[in-house]
Amino acid sequence: MTTLKNDRFLRALMREPVDVTPVWMMRQAGRYLPEYRATRADAGDFLSLCKNADFACEVTLQPLRRYELDAAILFSDILTVPDAMGLGLYFETGEGPKFERPVRTESDVAELRVPDMNDDLGYVMNAVSTIRNALNGDVPLIGFSGSPWTLATYMIEGGSSKDFRHIKAMMYKTPELLHQVLSVLADSVTQYLNAQIAAGAQAVQIFDTWGGALSGPCYDAFSLQYMQRIVQGLTKEAEGRRVPAIMFTKNGGQWLERMAATGADALGLDWTTEIGHARARVGDKVALQGNMDPSVLYADASQIEAEVGRILADFGANDGHVFNLGHGIHQFVDPESAKIFVDAVHEQSAQYHAHR
Amino acid sequence: MTTLKNDRFLRALMREPVDVTPVWMMRQAGRYLPEYRATRADAGDFLSLCKNADFACEVTLQPLRRYELDAAILFSDILTVPDAMGLGLYFETGEGPKFERPVRTESDVAELRVPDMNDDLGYVMNAVSTIRNALNGDVPLIGFSGSPWTLATYMIEGGSSKDFRHIKAMMYKTPELLHQVLSVLADSVTQYLNAQIAAGAQAVQIFDTWGGALSGPCYDAFSLQYMQRIVQGLTKEAEGRRVPAIMFTKNGGQWLERMAATGADALGLDWTTEIGHARARVGDKVALQGNMDPSVLYADASQIEAEVGRILADFGANDGHVFNLGHGIHQFVDPESAKIFVDAVHEQSAQYHAHR
Repeated sequence: MTTLKNDRFLRALMREPVDVTPVWMMRQAGRYLPEYRATRADAGDFLSLCKNADFACEVTLQPLRRYELDAAILFSDILTVPDAMGLGLYFETGEGPKFERPVRTESDVAELRVPDMNDDLGYVMNAVSTIRNALNGDVPLIGFSGSPWTLATYMIEGGSSKDFRHIKAMMYKTPELLHQVLSVLADSVTQYLNAQIAAGAQAVQIFDTWGGALSGPCYDAFSLQYMQRIVQGLTKEAEGRRVPAIMFTKNGGQWLERMAATGADALGLDWTTEIGHARARVGDKVALQGNMDPSVLYADASQIEAEVGRILADFGANDGHVFNLGHGIHQFVDPESAKIFVDAVHEQSAQYHAHR
Repeated sequence: MTTLKNDRFLRALMREPVDVTPVWMMRQAGRYLPEYRATRADAGDFLSLCKNADFACEVTLQPLRRYELDAAILFSDILTVPDAMGLGLYFETGEGPKFERPVRTESDVAELRVPDMNDDLGYVMNAVSTIRNALNGDVPLIGFSGSPWTLATYMIEGGSSKDFRHIKAMMYKTPELLHQVLSVLADSVTQYLNAQIAAGAQAVQIFDTWGGALSGPCYDAFSLQYMQRIVQGLTKEAEGRRVPAIMFTKNGGQWLERMAATGADALGLDWTTEIGHARARVGDKVALQGNMDPSVLYADASQIEAEVGRILADFGANDGHVFNLGHGIHQFVDPESAKIFVDAVHEQSAQYHAHR
């Protein structure tokens, strides 16, 4: 493997000193980029884009050609694992992801198996190694997965949901049945992330998009517990270096202390949590990643720069900050605004890392 | 005015002793009740149901005939105020509320006026006095309004939204323009709630459904500030009794201390906040209302009762708790489950109020 030319991202995740605050953007390979839309049109549809290593590599690299990002993230879908379990993932225009065979009954649950990482998900590992090669050591590559709870919401609802009617009915009525689903998912995600690490991922992020829809006790029992099991089962080191694990629960700002106690190296923050307050709450247990509202990118340059400055000042002169948006970049953002954002992080953060 | 036969709800909001914890349900007059669906069919459509005082009174009273609820809440729409501003509210089947004329430009904003509470919103005050008469002092009547920020999201987006693209672009790009909108709305909501109080409402609730989509500093500046202005402008007393004001920001659990400092008498909590923790944070500054996940009502009787018990125990032996769901009751809930819930609150809470 080639030497890593820019390891700010990995250093910040381990709360080690850096020259400037590293930055990347969730969903940085996405619809706001015209070149992404062109590649997606070439691929035909979204799943074909994910399943072809060359296309996936191309869109992963696109934002890195435009911006001085400090990390790349594997381009893939959050629902690859349930798809590999044979639930029949498909996309209806304007409707988001759907499953042909939602998981609702005891017999549905009994049939769930950990998918084979080579046979069923080999295309993801191909994408990881292809991207890693293409990166040529420029920046680290992040692997990722949805959290068990988040994957289960799609599997049980049969798609996106506002009220999580089916999964919550299962959770409150037959909690043991849901625990069975989550247990298979936790084993699957552990193997999935470890296979990504074996294929070349240098850090991993668990996306718990829907954990914030739970009460505190249910979050602990049905989301956090399984993420903790995954974190504990992850490969800790690869190529002689720690592989940091980032845990991100959207709307999870009330539970940061509990998340920090899981063994994760870093926590992702959405924009509803003030990062200075978060830092005070978690102390030096974990690094923090975030947390600008993606909608700030609709504003003018001076306003984007001011918001970057506010967040940097709120975090203060300390190690362990990876700058990011609090959620994925929106499709209607002007790509030029993303450049202003990324450059502002590097330019304004140097002062917090100097002379230390 | 007749004497109030059951004033537990008002007493709890003022943190005065009660015999059992009072309970009501957000959206208790709603689609989960077959008699509601029948009245709505008679009325023709949703807006006709809101605008006819007899229909509105009938659906307000329906849940009180089934359950031992400790309060009634005015049946009305959250968007009556922007509708009265002339924006052309309509409902598309399955799509939620829409406005014919969204507020986007400086000239759109310049045209906004506080509506006339008699001419434009007199139908709401008619409903309040009709319901108040029909209640005959059985339980208190709650008036309500959307918060300025929440109303503005619908007015500027033109309907419901996931990402609040237009209002957030306005907020970050031209904050003064949004402040103009919010200022007119704060004046309107103050007058609107005071007119409801004059017509007979005995408590009021401000629903800030979308404040939780904001960063902390933006929540303070664009939502909380205007709710505080409303609270400060409210009629404090009617019929010789305090008219308590409840402030409810969904997903606002991170900002309870700031909400408690506004002068509101009580805070509504969704289910993501643990009520014992919330109580410790706000001390004796405010009462707390909430906070069971409405999805618990999909479970069996013993599970509903256990969750009620857990929340009561978490709040503990103390004054100032109004039991409620953390959000509106879902349309697919069995009405019998709502009865189990309401009865469980009364039966299990007596122990926390005895001998004190």
